[in-house]
Amino acid sequence: MEEIYDVIIIGQGVAGMTAAVYAARAGAKVLILEKNAVGGQATLTYEIGNYPAFQSISGIELVDTMQKQVHALGVEVRYCKVEKIEDGDVKTVFTKNKQYKAKAIILCLGARPRMLGLPSETQFLGKGVSYCAVCDGAFFRNKVVAVVGGGNTAIEEANYLSKITSKVYVLVRKDKLRAQQILIDTLNKNIESGKVEVLYNTELEEICGVGKVEKVIIKNNLSGQNSEIKLSGIFIAIGREADTELVKDIVELDEYGYIVVDKNKQTSVNGIFAAGDCTNTVLRQIVTACADGAIAATSAVASIAAQK
Amino acid sequence: MEEIYDVIIIGQGVAGMTAAVYAARAGAKVLILEKNAVGGQATLTYEIGNYPAFQSISGIELVDTMQKQVHALGVEVRYCKVEKIEDGDVKTVFTKNKQYKAKAIILCLGARPRMLGLPSETQFLGKGVSYCAVCDGAFFRNKVVAVVGGGNTAIEEANYLSKITSKVYVLVRKDKLRAQQILIDTLNKNIESGKVEVLYNTELEEICGVGKVEKVIIKNNLSGQNSEIKLSGIFIAIGREADTELVKDIVELDEYGYIVVDKNKQTSVNGIFAAGDCTNTVLRQIVTACADGAIAATSAVASIAAQK
Repeated sequence: MEEIYDVIIIGQGVAGMTAAVYAARAGAKVLILEKNAVGGQATLTYEIGNYPAFQSISGIELVDTMQKQVHALGVEVRYCKVEKIEDGDVKTVFTKNKQYKAKAIILCLGARPRMLGLPSETQFLGKGVSYCAVCDGAFFRNKVVAVVGGGNTAIEEANYLSKITSKVYVLVRKDKLRAQQILIDTLNKNIESGKVEVLYNTELEEICGVGKVEKVIIKNNLSGQNSEIKLSGIFIAIGREADTELVKDIVELDEYGYIVVDKNKQTSVNGIFAAGDCTNTVLRQIVTACADGAIAATSAVASIAAQK
Repeated sequence: MEEIYDVIIIGQGVAGMTAAVYAARAGAKVLILEKNAVGGQATLTYEIGNYPAFQSISGIELVDTMQKQVHALGVEVRYCKVEKIEDGDVKTVFTKNKQYKAKAIILCLGARPRMLGLPSETQFLGKGVSYCAVCDGAFFRNKVVAVVGGGNTAIEEANYLSKITSKVYVLVRKDKLRAQQILIDTLNKNIESGKVEVLYNTELEEICGVGKVEKVIIKNNLSGQNSEIKLSGIFIAIGREADTELVKDIVELDEYGYIVVDKNKQTSVNGIFAAGDCTNTVLRQIVTACADGAIAATSAVASIAAQK
C-alpha cells in the first residue's frame, strides 16, 4: 500500500522548519519538500539582531541550528521541485519523478524582494544594501541612507528609518508617490522636520564603495544628469513577490499574490495550510514566520485528528 | 518637562522582551515595567524543545539570553506593579510611587494555568507534571499519561497526546464532558481505538514517585474509593487565567478574560497594543508570544509616527 504522510510541508525556510518541529513533536509523520537549498530568505541575511534569544547571529548559522533541530526529530526531507498539488481527502503532491500523498499540506513557499538588477546590488548585499528596514535599519543608527521606491513599502520603510538614521533620501523613479495617504501624511511630517528628502524622477545608477556602501550615483530622468549622494545604506523597496505560482489555481490569493489564511493558518482549501512570507500577514520577519509555522502545524495535526 | 516615553511595555515575559527589541531597534524610547521577575511563564519550563533554533534549552536560560539582548539595546526596565492606566493622546501609567507617560502602551500581561492545589503538583513540575501538551507532550512518547479536566482544553490535550503516547487517561471530576462536540467526536474515535480512556466522577488525590512521576492516586466521587494508575506524565488542564484584571475596564476582553486584538495587535483602544498569552490568540507558545511582540512593537511605532 502506498505510504501516506500526515503532513507534507512544501518549503524548508524557517516557517517550514518550525512547522516540521511542531508537527513531528505532535506525533505526525512529516515530509519536507524543498526545491532549492534549506533556509530560504533567512540565509541571505548577514546579521540578524532581532531574532529573540540571539543578540547577533548570521542567517546561515540560524538556519543551520534549526535544520539540526528538524533532523533530530527524524523528519524526512527531499530536495525536489513540486510541480502540482491535487486536492482530495488525501492530497497528492507531484514532483518530476514521484508523487507523495498526505492528509494535510502546509505551504511555506516564501517570498523574495524584487531586485533592481544592478551588479553592485548583489555585491553590497549585507554591506549596506538591504531589502528590509525592520530587519536591518538598526545597523544604520545616525547614518545617511536612501530608500528606492515610491509605493507603500518604500514609504513605510522611509518613515521607519527616519526615527533611527540621520537622514533618509527617497529615490522615486516617477514624478509622484503611489502610496496610501496615511503613509504620505507621516512622510510629509518627516520631510518638514528635515529627516526625509524625496527626490522624484530619480533612478539609482550605481552603488559605490570599498568593501561597504559609501555613495550612490543617481540620474535625473528629466535632465539626464548624474549626481551622487554620500551614504551608508540603501533600502531597495520596489516590491516583493510571493512564490505562490504553484498554488494560484488551488488556494485563494490576495491581490498581491499572497496566500489568504485565517487565524489558524488554514487556506481557502480544507486541509491545506500556509505559513510565513507567502501568506497575507502584516509583518514578514523570521520570528513571525516561525510562529506561523507553529500555528499551521498545530492546526494541521488537529484537522487530521478530526478527519479520521 | 516631564519625560514622555514612546512605548511603555507592561510585562517582561518573552512577548514583552521581543516587543522591546523591536521597538528599541526602531528608534523608540522604551520602558519596561515588570511586577514580578523577568521571564513570565517561560521560566517555569524546565526543558523547551520547540523554540526554533534550540534543540533543547531551559526556560531560565532562554529568558536570560533574551534579557541580555534587551539590555544590549539600552532598554530601561523598572520592577514595580502597575496600578492604573489612563488613556489619552498621551497615556499615563501609575505605579505605587510614580507615574510614567507614553505615546503607546503594549500590554504583555501573560496568563497562568489554574492549578489543582496539591502539594505534589509543584514538587513534580517539569518532572512529569505539565500544563501544556503542545509544549511537553513530545517528552512522553510511548508512555502512559493522564489529562485532568473535562473542558475544551483538556479534550484538545487528550486528542493531541493520543498521537504521541501509548495511552491517555482523562480524569473528569463530573459525570460528563463540557467541551465542543467536534473535540468530543475526535475523542470518541480515540476511545474506540483504545488510545484514550475517560474516567468520570474522578478526582486526582495524589501524585507519587521518586524524583519523577510514577503513579497517581485517584478517587471515585460516587463510591469514595481510591485506586491508582501507573503513569509517567500528568497534564493539568482545568483552565487558564489571563492576567488582565488591570485593564478590564479599559480595553475589550473576550468572554474568557483575554484581550481582544486585531491582526496588528491593536486593542479596542487606539495606541494600546497587546501581545502574547494575555490576548485572544489561537496558540500560546513562546515563539508565538515573541512574534506577537514583534508585531505589536512595529504597529506601535508606526502609530506614533502617524500621530505626531
